[in-house]
Amino acid sequence: MKGQFCRETIDKSLAEAGIDFERLDIQELWKQISILEQKLNVQYLRMDFGIPGLPPPDAAINAHLEALSDRKIVSRYPPSEGVTELKVETAEFLNLFLGIQLEPEWCLPTCGSTEAAFIAQAISGRRYKERRQILHLEPGYPPIKAQTQLLGLESCAVDLYACRGRQLIDVIQSHINEGHLAAISWSSPNNPTSMVLSEEELRDIGMLCEWNDVIAIEDAAYLGMIKGGRSSGLRQWNSISQYTDNFFLLLSASKMFSYAGERIGMLVSSAALMGRDYEAMDEFFGCKNVGRAIKRTIFNLTAGAPHTAQYAIARVLKAINQGQYDFVKILGEYGNRARAVRDILLRNGFYGVYEPIHEESEGGFYLTFGFPGLTAAQLLKELLYHGITVLPLSVFGSRHEGGVRACVGLLEQEDMPCFEHRISEFSKSRVACPARLMQ
Amino acid sequence: MKGQFCRETIDKSLAEAGIDFERLDIQELWKQISILEQKLNVQYLRMDFGIPGLPPPDAAINAHLEALSDRKIVSRYPPSEGVTELKVETAEFLNLFLGIQLEPEWCLPTCGSTEAAFIAQAISGRRYKERRQILHLEPGYPPIKAQTQLLGLESCAVDLYACRGRQLIDVIQSHINEGHLAAISWSSPNNPTSMVLSEEELRDIGMLCEWNDVIAIEDAAYLGMIKGGRSSGLRQWNSISQYTDNFFLLLSASKMFSYAGERIGMLVSSAALMGRDYEAMDEFFGCKNVGRAIKRTIFNLTAGAPHTAQYAIARVLKAINQGQYDFVKILGEYGNRARAVRDILLRNGFYGVYEPIHEESEGGFYLTFGFPGLTAAQLLKELLYHGITVLPLSVFGSRHEGGVRACVGLLEQEDMPCFEHRISEFSKSRVACPARLMQ
Repeated sequence: MKGQFCRETIDKSLAEAGIDFERLDIQELWKQISILEQKLNVQYLRMDFGIPGLPPPDAAINAHLEALSDRKIVSRYPPSEGVTELKVETAEFLNLFLGIQLEPEWCLPTCGSTEAAFIAQAISGRRYKERRQILHLEPGYPPIKAQTQLLGLESCAVDLYACRGRQLIDVIQSHINEGHLAAISWSSPNNPTSMVLSEEELRDIGMLCEWNDVIAIEDAAYLGMIKGGRSSGLRQWNSISQYTDNFFLLLSASKMFSYAGERIGMLVSSAALMGRDYEAMDEFFGCKNVGRAIKRTIFNLTAGAPHTAQYAIARVLKAINQGQYDFVKILGEYGNRARAVRDILLRNGFYGVYEPIHEESEGGFYLTFGFPGLTAAQLLKELLYHGITVLPLSVFGSRHEGGVRACVGLLEQEDMPCFEHRISEFSKSRVACPARLMQ
Repeated sequence: MKGQFCRETIDKSLAEAGIDFERLDIQELWKQISILEQKLNVQYLRMDFGIPGLPPPDAAINAHLEALSDRKIVSRYPPSEGVTELKVETAEFLNLFLGIQLEPEWCLPTCGSTEAAFIAQAISGRRYKERRQILHLEPGYPPIKAQTQLLGLESCAVDLYACRGRQLIDVIQSHINEGHLAAISWSSPNNPTSMVLSEEELRDIGMLCEWNDVIAIEDAAYLGMIKGGRSSGLRQWNSISQYTDNFFLLLSASKMFSYAGERIGMLVSSAALMGRDYEAMDEFFGCKNVGRAIKRTIFNLTAGAPHTAQYAIARVLKAINQGQYDFVKILGEYGNRARAVRDILLRNGFYGVYEPIHEESEGGFYLTFGFPGLTAAQLLKELLYHGITVLPLSVFGSRHEGGVRACVGLLEQEDMPCFEHRISEFSKSRVACPARLMQ
């Protein structure tokens, strides 16, 4: 028998677990939601975490199975610079889709883009003794800022909600003027807003980076999840790597190829940056050269990235490069879901928070929204009572107080009627007892 | 047609690549040896790196294949605390083989023991502002010290070559007395000497750790590769975890289960240590609790450990725990190879460097030896001319100037005649032209 989303049990359970909605520990919340599902015998529509719901590509799985049958691949350490096939196909892929020319040598596999982000920050923040500040363009994925902290570097932030275009460039310029800025870090498409920076913004950021030797760290974990941003006929996205050599580009197989389980990402950069030497790096890396320090750090942190999975991703990239696998079309399913969800929300009195400014930000994997009169914490709790889980935008560094993030990764088309029903029940309950607004 | 190990080509090739034998970059050497093999059309007996040569257990491969067929395992992030089966079987395994009682909760999968070591040091060295020193018992695996450096912590060292027993304890005590010691780090069995600390040494180190809140970091990546060290009938090895709660134990599937490709290790500790709070940790981890900080850091560094591989290792541990798979017997093959190699070396004028003090250190994966009148760099080069690759002990922090390390992982029994032939050719060449000693 199906259970009920009992308000009292939910409140009691979360209170006992010490869930603090104002300073949310995401992992703890995830755990509690799973516990609640068992306790109440219910199934939440899990929109709180960013989990890919599409199946991994057959090409990847087949190559993965083949690699597993080669016992030398399983038993031997991966080359710490990565499997050649993967490096070559990555460079080719980036050429085709971003229009940038990179050397396979500088496409370095890591244990997820998370490890790549850590190393990118470690290098960026240790090139000059006096420059230990990372500017995060918010909102963003919280572990990136946790890495800044773990590295003993300093975080500063600007929220893209109210700061775009010339204003954004001015803010970056003023941070640079203070003399402590090592890098600027953001995700593109953005998690959680699906936004991408415009060509003008990227061009200006690129110039600022070049002139001041600041590094741009662009996390492209969601590449392919929004429409191509270029006006030309080419299927090409905006990327800082098109405007400066001073970049680290982070790639991930997790979302693009539904390979989150296997921890495969990539740290990519230009030969120009990789070839540079900095005196101050020697203290932490035992060498002054950026490329050498990165290769060593991958080896010293995780001894490379999982061996068999590298062959899996090499194969799917090859299929894409040869025009045999249209990953953008496949990922378009998330865009369809996002549009359906957005329609349902708007019909039921919700408002969008980070509305797409440009058409290219349509689609995406996440939505950001709020409900009039409710704070994010209140909305999160109310939705919990109605069988839907989301996260407050504050978790991602957003200054917007009423917004939450929902991910469509696990919400399949067949779940849509259930989603609509729960949202409309929530909506009716708001109309029925508006006094609750003030609780 | 088979090529020759041409002295001139080798010299020229290594010189051009800028190989500095006095300050060796291991990864660079590995790369050059592979290049030499192609250039000269020869095959080296690769004893320079620690690569498992035995096939991975069927149980692991089968479970791995099964997990890969479950697309939800591939596509979804691993639980950041690890797959339950793996945690449970690890705790059971440690109970059976080390005789310690641990909670599965505190058996945390990582991307190899390398990541585990990094996190263990990060935590240890950030509990007290004034205690940022890690004492490394040498020789040891170089990346561990590179991690200390990467974390901005301070390394100090004592060489076990000439310092054991009471003397070792006195050295540790004197480091503690200086007031800056955060942790003591070593591998057991030792890489590269196969030594294990004695029960008396461990007992005393354990007491020093308890009294002074110093953490013992024991890297057990080579567990099972030497005879059990206990006099009792139980098949049990010495471990610091038997003497204090103040430990981090690092496990790895790489050598024990020939799973180096897949990056699976484990960070293990006591509930007592995991439950402790330290004010100073908040600055780096955003929380004061050891266990919570470790879970967060695994999530923030690599978002967990490869999902399918966790099921693989869970299965093989289960087979061991149920008495269906005798991994010690399987690993005994390396001991057989090591004994055969040792005999050949001794017959040809070599001497052992870190000779086993106790019987329990017999067997092993590595050998350490030298040749009269040659420095380690000279011996390494001379062996390169004779088709054998090794590494100088200085790479591992040893103070012994003539010693090299050789690994028997890839040297199969059928390679033994070739090994013996090359060693005897080398030996004859030393007798034939002793003047070369002075080069």
